[in-house]
Amino acid sequence: MDRKILLKESDIPRQWYNIAADLPTPMLPPLGPDGNPITPEMLAPVFPMNLIEQEVSSERWIDIPDEVLDILYRWRPAPLRRATYLEKYLDTPAKIYYKDESTSPPGSHKPNTAVPQAWYNKQFGIERITTETGAGQWGSALSFACNLIGLECKVFMVRISFDQKPFRKLMMQVWNGNCVASPSNETNAGRTILEEMPDTPGSLGIAISEAIEQAVTDPTGKTRYSLGSVLNHVMLHQSIIGLEAKKQLEMVGAGTPDIIIGCAGGGSNFAGLAFPFTLDKINGADIEIIPVEPTACPTLTKAPFAYDFGDTACTTPLLPMHSLGHRFVPAPIHAGGLRYHGMAPLVSQCVVEGLHTPRAIDQVECYEAAMTWSKTEGTICAPETSHAIAAVIQEAKKAKEEGKEKTIIFNYSGHGLMDLTGYDAYLTGKLTKYALPDKEIEKTEACLKDYPQAEMRKSGKW
Amino acid sequence: MDRKILLKESDIPRQWYNIAADLPTPMLPPLGPDGNPITPEMLAPVFPMNLIEQEVSSERWIDIPDEVLDILYRWRPAPLRRATYLEKYLDTPAKIYYKDESTSPPGSHKPNTAVPQAWYNKQFGIERITTETGAGQWGSALSFACNLIGLECKVFMVRISFDQKPFRKLMMQVWNGNCVASPSNETNAGRTILEEMPDTPGSLGIAISEAIEQAVTDPTGKTRYSLGSVLNHVMLHQSIIGLEAKKQLEMVGAGTPDIIIGCAGGGSNFAGLAFPFTLDKINGADIEIIPVEPTACPTLTKAPFAYDFGDTACTTPLLPMHSLGHRFVPAPIHAGGLRYHGMAPLVSQCVVEGLHTPRAIDQVECYEAAMTWSKTEGTICAPETSHAIAAVIQEAKKAKEEGKEKTIIFNYSGHGLMDLTGYDAYLTGKLTKYALPDKEIEKTEACLKDYPQAEMRKSGKW
Repeated sequence: MDRKILLKESDIPRQWYNIAADLPTPMLPPLGPDGNPITPEMLAPVFPMNLIEQEVSSERWIDIPDEVLDILYRWRPAPLRRATYLEKYLDTPAKIYYKDESTSPPGSHKPNTAVPQAWYNKQFGIERITTETGAGQWGSALSFACNLIGLECKVFMVRISFDQKPFRKLMMQVWNGNCVASPSNETNAGRTILEEMPDTPGSLGIAISEAIEQAVTDPTGKTRYSLGSVLNHVMLHQSIIGLEAKKQLEMVGAGTPDIIIGCAGGGSNFAGLAFPFTLDKINGADIEIIPVEPTACPTLTKAPFAYDFGDTACTTPLLPMHSLGHRFVPAPIHAGGLRYHGMAPLVSQCVVEGLHTPRAIDQVECYEAAMTWSKTEGTICAPETSHAIAAVIQEAKKAKEEGKEKTIIFNYSGHGLMDLTGYDAYLTGKLTKYALPDKEIEKTEACLKDYPQAEMRKSGKW
Repeated sequence: MDRKILLKESDIPRQWYNIAADLPTPMLPPLGPDGNPITPEMLAPVFPMNLIEQEVSSERWIDIPDEVLDILYRWRPAPLRRATYLEKYLDTPAKIYYKDESTSPPGSHKPNTAVPQAWYNKQFGIERITTETGAGQWGSALSFACNLIGLECKVFMVRISFDQKPFRKLMMQVWNGNCVASPSNETNAGRTILEEMPDTPGSLGIAISEAIEQAVTDPTGKTRYSLGSVLNHVMLHQSIIGLEAKKQLEMVGAGTPDIIIGCAGGGSNFAGLAFPFTLDKINGADIEIIPVEPTACPTLTKAPFAYDFGDTACTTPLLPMHSLGHRFVPAPIHAGGLRYHGMAPLVSQCVVEGLHTPRAIDQVECYEAAMTWSKTEGTICAPETSHAIAAVIQEAKKAKEEGKEKTIIFNYSGHGLMDLTGYDAYLTGKLTKYALPDKEIEKTEACLKDYPQAEMRKSGKW
C-alpha cells in the first residue's frame, strides 16, 4: 500500500460542507452589545455580503466556484498519508493516517479559506483587505491569496512577532502583502495605545481593532476585513480537508475512522477535518473526535460556554463560544496559533452537544511528540500541529495496550520551518510547562459576567 | 489534465543511472598531487569502500537497495508538475513541466544522495559522518538522513552562515546533527586559521578541510567524510530525479522534451534531472540541455576544463573539471549553493562533449523570475532554483516568438523559505548585479598552471 493516498484534480470536492445544517440544536445567534441578535446588514461594513451570506447560511452544501478551485489546484487535492514509520516506531496496531496540509505554498491549511475569502471580496468589488496576524501564518496565507487574485492586502502584525519573526514578514512581502507592526500610527486604535504605552509588544486584540478600523473607515468603501479562523464561513471553507480525506480513506478501503484528531486554536483546521466526519457521528457512527488544545490555554476543557467578544478590544459581535474571557492573556507558549481566548462557535457547539471530546496537552509533551515525529516520519511540524501529534501518540499507545487495530486520522496542519525557536528551547532544556491553574477561571467568570448572557443562561448551557 | 503528475511507490525507479557508462569519451581519472591517477585504496580513509566502488564504477545501472527506497518513500516519488499558471501568464505555446524536489523534509534534492550515502556508510560499519555546509542545505539533508539511519552527523558550517542563518542550524539540531561554526577549535586546520585570523568569516574550503581531517584522524576508524555534490556517486544517486521524470512525461504522453534546464553549482540537481535525458541525446534525440549558473560564478561558461582541487585547501584529489581555480572567491550572491569554483567532472565532460549548453544569468534577472513564479505558481523558490526559472522564462518567451509548442522541463530544486534575505534585498532595491570580468579569468589560469595539467593538455581539452 502506498504511504501517499492521492486524489486527482477531478476528484476534488465541488461543494463545501456546512455543519450548521446538521447540528442537533440550532446555533445561538451572535449578539450586539445591547444583547440583541445582530443582522447581516450590521456586518456589511466589515465583510462583503456574499461572505456574510455564507456566515449565516444553514444550507448543508455550498458550491465551490470553479475559479476558486482553479486557484486551489496549486496544491490541492492535498495528500492523505499513512504514518507507517511512526506506527512501526510505536509498535502499535493502530493505523495512523494524516491529511498533509503543510503542502500549500504558505505551509499550512490557512490558504483554504484565504483564497475563497479573497475571491468573494474581489467578486463583490472590493479592492483591499485588512487583517491581523499573530505568529504570521494567517497574514502570509492572505497575502498569498490576494497576490494571486489581485487585491491589496494589509496585515497588522503583533509587534513582538513582527520584530522576532522577520522571515514571516518577508514571506508576506514576497507575496506583495503590506505588513506593518501593530500598534501602528495608521489607526486611532493604534495611536491611542502607542500614546499610552509606546513600548507595548502589541497583542492580537489590538491588531484586530486596527484592521477592522482601517476597513470600516475607508471612505471609498472598497476595503473589507478578513478573519482567518473562528467564524462559520471559515469552518465552511476548511471542510474541503475532511471531504477530501473521506474520499481518500474510501480509496484504500480504510472505512470510517475510529478516532479523529486536530489541534484547536480558533478551531478551523480541526473543524476542517472533523466536521464531515461529525456528520457521520450525528448519524450514528462510533467515532471519537478530539480537538487538542494547550494546557496553557484550555478553552474547551476548562472555560465556560458563554457569549464573549472575539477580540480583546470588544469590537466584534458577542459570539456563543467556549471562552477564557476576552481579557485572558495566555502564557507565552510557542504554539502562537493556539493562544486564543475563544473558540469557533460551531466547534464550541459540537463540544456542548457531546460530539467532540476535547483534550489539553502541555507543550513539553507536544515537543517530545514533534521530536518523535521528526525522527520517524522525518518532517518538522508546526508547534500547533505537535499538539495533534501528541494526542495521536497517546491514542496509538492506548490502542497497543488494548490490542485494538484502531484507525486514527489527524490533521497535519502545517510545517514548522518558520517556527524553529520552540525546538531550540526544547533542545536546550529551556521549554517551560504551563498549565492554567483552576482558580484563574474565576477571572474568566468575572470578565464574562458583564455581558449579555441571558440567552445563554436561558439555554441552560452556562 | 492534472497539474500534478504522480507516480505510485511501485513505479519508483529500482536502479540509478550512471552516465559514465555512456559518455562518448571515457572520463579522465582523478589525479594525486604527483600527477599520477589515484587509486580507490587511496580514498579509503575518506569514504567507505562501497561508495568508492560507485564513484569509480562504469556500470550503466546500479541497483537501489530496498532499504534505501524504504527511506526515500517519505517523499518520493516526487511530483512532476505542469506550470500552467506561468504558461498562461507568459502567454507561451511552450508546455512547462517541473520536477518538484522541494517536497523532501529538508526542502531540496539533497536528501536523494544524503540517504544512500548515510546508508552505505552504516552498512560499512561506520558510526559517524563529517561534512561541511555553506548555506546549510547539505548539512540539514545529511543530518536528516543520519538521524533516520542511526549515525552521528558532524557538520562544519561556514561561520558567516552559522551566524547569519540560525534557523538552518536549528533545523540540523532538530535532526540530531552536531553543527559547529568553522573554523573551529576541534581540528588542526581550524586552529591554525583561527590563530592567524581570529575574526575570519570562514569559507567552504576551510570547512571541507576540517571535516576531512576529523574523519581521517578518528583513531577508531569509524568516521568517514561525505560530500553533497560534485562527485560521481552523488550524480548517480540524483539520477532518480530524471528517471522518475521520464516515466511521468510518458504517463501524460508528453514525449521527449525539447529543452531541459537546471541550475548548476556543484552540478548534482542539474545532473539528476539531465543525465537520463542526456542518454537519449547521445542516442540521437534532439534535446537542448541547459545548466544555468550565475554570471558571478561562470564556471561552465567562462572557465577552462582543467585539473583542479575540489577544495580551497587542496586536500582533495585533482579532478578533471571546469574550474575558476580553487582560490576563486565568488561575489556574495544570494544563491550560496551556486558559489562553487568547480563543477562535477561528469557535467564538465558533458559540456566538453557538446551534450550540454551552459548559460549564465545575473541574479537580478533571477530574482525577477522568482517573483514572477511566486505571483503565478504561488511558491517561493530557493535562490539557486531561481536561475533555472529565469532560463525557463527566457526559453518560453523564445518559443512564443518562434511560435513553437516546445516542451520544457526543469528541476525545481528547492524552496526558499529558509533563504528569504535575498528576496528582501531584491524588494528593497539593494540587490547587486555581478558579472565576472573577463580579465579575472587570468587569475584562474595562474591558479591552475602550477598543477599537473599534462594529461589534460595531452587530451587537447585545455
